[in-house]
Amino acid sequence: MATQLALTSAVLVIGNEVLSGRTQDANLGFLAARLADLGLPVVEARVVPDEEPAIVEAVNALRARVTYLFTTGGIGPTHDDITAAAVAKAFDVPVVRDPEAERRLRAHYGGGDVNEARLKMADVPRGATLIDNPVSQAPGFRIGNVFVLAGVPVIAQAMFDALAPGLAGGPPVRSRSIPCRVLEGDFAADLAQVQAAHATVGIGSYPFFRSGKVGVTLVIRGTDPDAVDAASADVEAMVRRLEGDPPI
Amino acid sequence: MATQLALTSAVLVIGNEVLSGRTQDANLGFLAARLADLGLPVVEARVVPDEEPAIVEAVNALRARVTYLFTTGGIGPTHDDITAAAVAKAFDVPVVRDPEAERRLRAHYGGGDVNEARLKMADVPRGATLIDNPVSQAPGFRIGNVFVLAGVPVIAQAMFDALAPGLAGGPPVRSRSIPCRVLEGDFAADLAQVQAAHATVGIGSYPFFRSGKVGVTLVIRGTDPDAVDAASADVEAMVRRLEGDPPI
Repeated sequence: MATQLALTSAVLVIGNEVLSGRTQDANLGFLAARLADLGLPVVEARVVPDEEPAIVEAVNALRARVTYLFTTGGIGPTHDDITAAAVAKAFDVPVVRDPEAERRLRAHYGGGDVNEARLKMADVPRGATLIDNPVSQAPGFRIGNVFVLAGVPVIAQAMFDALAPGLAGGPPVRSRSIPCRVLEGDFAADLAQVQAAHATVGIGSYPFFRSGKVGVTLVIRGTDPDAVDAASADVEAMVRRLEGDPPI
Repeated sequence: MATQLALTSAVLVIGNEVLSGRTQDANLGFLAARLADLGLPVVEARVVPDEEPAIVEAVNALRARVTYLFTTGGIGPTHDDITAAAVAKAFDVPVVRDPEAERRLRAHYGGGDVNEARLKMADVPRGATLIDNPVSQAPGFRIGNVFVLAGVPVIAQAMFDALAPGLAGGPPVRSRSIPCRVLEGDFAADLAQVQAAHATVGIGSYPFFRSGKVGVTLVIRGTDPDAVDAASADVEAMVRRLEGDPPI
């Protein structure tokens, strides 16, 4: 196992549509890859429904154990968009209307189309700062170590791009992938030895079955480039030795 | 909000590859849709790394609050496959080698290819019962209200098909989707009234941006078919009224 890194992230996906199977979440994969590059690996993710107690509990559990928590979903104008109120409750602060957010929404929608539902998107927990939304203006926000993003992936990604320069990250997580045609059971004992010899990296073994091909991708991950190189060399040597054997 | 159903499920995805962004999880969506059909809606999902304390904590937190918990991942032969040991620890029972699982593995791999790593896949928490794996034989298992499935989607799905007839479900969750070309902010107040008038169903509002088209899908979900029909009729009437207005 890799050593636990000091800087970590968590992701909280908020939305009945993901829990019902209607929508395939796309935000965790995006955030996880970007946060690993920034040296803020995701150590836990949760998906909860659009219900205040569930959101409050998850926000408070996760924000206490990571450097940064990122939430997605529930910040639109409809009745099922309750993330801002729930996050405010998690922080035990009131919801207030942010003047700058209101200004942006009024400018975006124009006089005739601004209504109370749209202005709800300017309501944030007291003490929050805005996260720019270049796609549709309605901002996300940050409070404490929690970043609240939209659920629509193109907007969540634009918001992340806007906030990323402000994150205090660590050394990027580097990874090496080594595909092989050896079955897991044929190298498991050897691979465990390689893992034991390289305790500062994590080595994962992921079987695949695609297009009639069966194989395994071995993935070496860690923040120390030399350690990743050294472990990868040992994994490659193991694979070459085993692939030389006759049948797989 | 929909009333809380008595029968519920949770999903625990176990795997560094999902938290690193390397692999897009496909098991939650599959399980969520199937469990909704079986009247066992998923009320929470978590993703945790291949680390025993994280798995133990999540298994114990989730199994206490739902009818059934389904885990995916971590039941192969390699060093990073630690789900069986972690689930045993969560239940405070030892790991034992299951004779029937061992028999299946020996039959599948044949004398020459059976080794200790492969036989590790016959190790289950004491008291567990096997879940058939028609794809690659190495079984999943059930202990208490926890079902432990493979991570490879084709195997997880085959295991679910094998166990599903034994689940005690409730009335299926029915859903109706109504796409519309009205923007959320233009119907949010009206939709909140429809939701308030139909408290036994949940109404969700999901904007989409695809192929240059902007719109919203309204989803009505509930277990009472008449209630879903009645709420859907009101949502459809609202949409027809608004789409008749000139601009969106």
